[in-house]
Amino acid sequence: MNGPLKVALLGCGTVGSAVLRLLQDQSGDLAARIGRPVEVAGVAVRRPQHHPDVPGDLLTTDAHALVTRDDVDLVVEVIGGIEPARSLMLAAFESGKSVVSANKALLAEDGVALHAAAAKAGVDLYYEAAVAGSIPILRPLRESLAGDQLSRVVGIVNGTTNYILSRMAETGAGFGEALAEATELGYAEADPTADVDGFDAAAKAAILASLAFHTPVSAADVHREGISEVTATDVARAAEIGCTVKLLAICERVAGTDGDSVAVRVHPAMIPTTHPLASVSGAFNAVFVEAEAAGQLMFYGQGAGGEPTASAVLGDLVAVARNRLAGAAGQGPSGYADLAVRPMAETPTRYHVSLDVADKPGVLAAVAQEFAQHGVSISTVRQTGRGDAATLVIVTHSAPDAALSDTIDALREMPAVVGVTSVLRVEGLS
Amino acid sequence: MNGPLKVALLGCGTVGSAVLRLLQDQSGDLAARIGRPVEVAGVAVRRPQHHPDVPGDLLTTDAHALVTRDDVDLVVEVIGGIEPARSLMLAAFESGKSVVSANKALLAEDGVALHAAAAKAGVDLYYEAAVAGSIPILRPLRESLAGDQLSRVVGIVNGTTNYILSRMAETGAGFGEALAEATELGYAEADPTADVDGFDAAAKAAILASLAFHTPVSAADVHREGISEVTATDVARAAEIGCTVKLLAICERVAGTDGDSVAVRVHPAMIPTTHPLASVSGAFNAVFVEAEAAGQLMFYGQGAGGEPTASAVLGDLVAVARNRLAGAAGQGPSGYADLAVRPMAETPTRYHVSLDVADKPGVLAAVAQEFAQHGVSISTVRQTGRGDAATLVIVTHSAPDAALSDTIDALREMPAVVGVTSVLRVEGLS
Repeated sequence: MNGPLKVALLGCGTVGSAVLRLLQDQSGDLAARIGRPVEVAGVAVRRPQHHPDVPGDLLTTDAHALVTRDDVDLVVEVIGGIEPARSLMLAAFESGKSVVSANKALLAEDGVALHAAAAKAGVDLYYEAAVAGSIPILRPLRESLAGDQLSRVVGIVNGTTNYILSRMAETGAGFGEALAEATELGYAEADPTADVDGFDAAAKAAILASLAFHTPVSAADVHREGISEVTATDVARAAEIGCTVKLLAICERVAGTDGDSVAVRVHPAMIPTTHPLASVSGAFNAVFVEAEAAGQLMFYGQGAGGEPTASAVLGDLVAVARNRLAGAAGQGPSGYADLAVRPMAETPTRYHVSLDVADKPGVLAAVAQEFAQHGVSISTVRQTGRGDAATLVIVTHSAPDAALSDTIDALREMPAVVGVTSVLRVEGLS
Repeated sequence: MNGPLKVALLGCGTVGSAVLRLLQDQSGDLAARIGRPVEVAGVAVRRPQHHPDVPGDLLTTDAHALVTRDDVDLVVEVIGGIEPARSLMLAAFESGKSVVSANKALLAEDGVALHAAAAKAGVDLYYEAAVAGSIPILRPLRESLAGDQLSRVVGIVNGTTNYILSRMAETGAGFGEALAEATELGYAEADPTADVDGFDAAAKAAILASLAFHTPVSAADVHREGISEVTATDVARAAEIGCTVKLLAICERVAGTDGDSVAVRVHPAMIPTTHPLASVSGAFNAVFVEAEAAGQLMFYGQGAGGEPTASAVLGDLVAVARNRLAGAAGQGPSGYADLAVRPMAETPTRYHVSLDVADKPGVLAAVAQEFAQHGVSISTVRQTGRGDAATLVIVTHSAPDAALSDTIDALREMPAVVGVTSVLRVEGLS
């Protein structure tokens, strides 16, 4: 009855081996905090010969057998990806085991079904480590802010792209050059698609939006644009208007005539250098939250890495272990609000546009007219002449994204417009 | 069985009336998140005639009768102070009711006994609102970081003193002038003692340290210095070495030959302007956490005010309501580590000292010798001559606080030292 709680560890890469190390190093503290010692029952890996540091009798290639073993109480899933992680998680639930996961892709794709399976089995599914590494953000959203109404969650949740954009700003380098540096230093993977094209951030945005708005949101609901088209010119233009370029995961509750909806999107944007998120540089992550009563909050810390991610995994492990000993599962996320997901075209955004135009009478009027025709109101214009050409830098007010992108398309067709040199959305301007 | 959960509200000042308003405005969402509607059973106040906005049939002056009423399920205590809050809380526990409190003074004075009483009754005592207003920090310390080892928690947890220090830095004003402005604008109370002398921050430090180090720490264990002796010169000197002055609540785990201990203190200190806490200005609060695996984390938001504090109260209310419906109390804090509290004299700190000295041969050597005799190593010295006098600005390495203050006393006695113009501790320098 008072024997140790036994944990099955699925996966033993960077995060898994840090989990294993911390479970050993802190066994005394963990036992005191949980009220029972925790012991590793087994470690499922694909290639046991690659894990000489793990005691041989713990290693197994049969993950399914491990999670369904009678003596296993809790499962930690740090394999990542969709399969076999999903099947193993479902098998764990069916055999009455709570799961702690760091799997953003799986949770973002199939969170609703997985939570339903966990609830049916009366067990927990916790995954703080899936978003923003060590930063406690999911528990605060799910619990601390459960008495408030959230209006926005804006995160820098991908360290690789944040490093690349930080370097572009510091050195004036283009995207390709900064990516090459990040790859060389190990900040970007050999295939950087998941980071650079925003898939990683989109999965995290889906998870954040689901919890923030009590509404099921999956990765497919998230409008996604990566940073590969951000140019040195964009970064320079941002600096000229007191801004910096960041890849943002933005989750908003948008009021509409037919009720509220949620808009969830990942794209690069200019934000003022005075915004709390602007100084989050390099591999750090931060999540900025706006709530009706609480006001503005920010959570900041290391977004990746074995040890930081393992810290979040172990925090969840302590929680699910306590729940198991208390005989009650913790509170899962609720989807009761079930708000509609607003298409990107109808989501209000603001644009920054830089144009090279012919410097002759009537051009500014014609350009302004093009914005007006699309129902887009202009916030600021700055015109700089240089010989027979001029540069126009325009920041719009908020308008439906489709109206803004249609305006850009129309500007490109105007004879007086020599070139559209920079287009980026702007966030956080008052 | 499915009737509403009934809440007794004790106190109806700024926070209480915000709680009441949010309970009404968000009743639908709260019911969905808890799984049962929440209803206010009564509001205990001293002077019912001062609360015309509260329905008369809810108001009562008999708080004890209210908390022990059979139909009351949960108690929200926002009276503040030690009594009658403590007796009412104990009465609530004895009659099987969980309590949500914003009472930092009471929790810091008597947390251990109150938690024991709650545990004995099998009910919850939650108090996220007691520290740093709306910022989720206690739940992250208690739960999210439960699998990690914390080494430091450093907070700006008092908005009044932070406002005063921010204004001193911006305007060059002295303490008295900045306090007068804060009082006029309503940022400081008529009797500012609790804020200005660090009592408020010390209570919060005790609560933070207790949770961070699994060790009972009470307000009496906290070394406390306020900001009333911070001068315009101190603030100017800080700027000269790239620092800014903040009132910090510092909770540290200190390794010693006889085992680890905890050092908990509140005092003004210079911190580098590049430190994440340096840019926390005005009435905002922030808590900076260092953990072995997670690394550096920061939590930022509004530290006071009715609505932000009510947001934290309602988050706890949802949690204790869910626990009640699940039939299990949540996890309270643990004091298993029970580390010794280190006296301030033995706590390692660093000092900044500015001296006016006679500009003649041997003075620097004599001053340096005084530091050496006390076992204090010097990190940086800057000497500026001006006629027959000179200014010496010295930043020390870390040394026991008593050695540092003894050194200052000795310097004041030196004939060559014309005056000690600024002494402040320094934090966060590498």
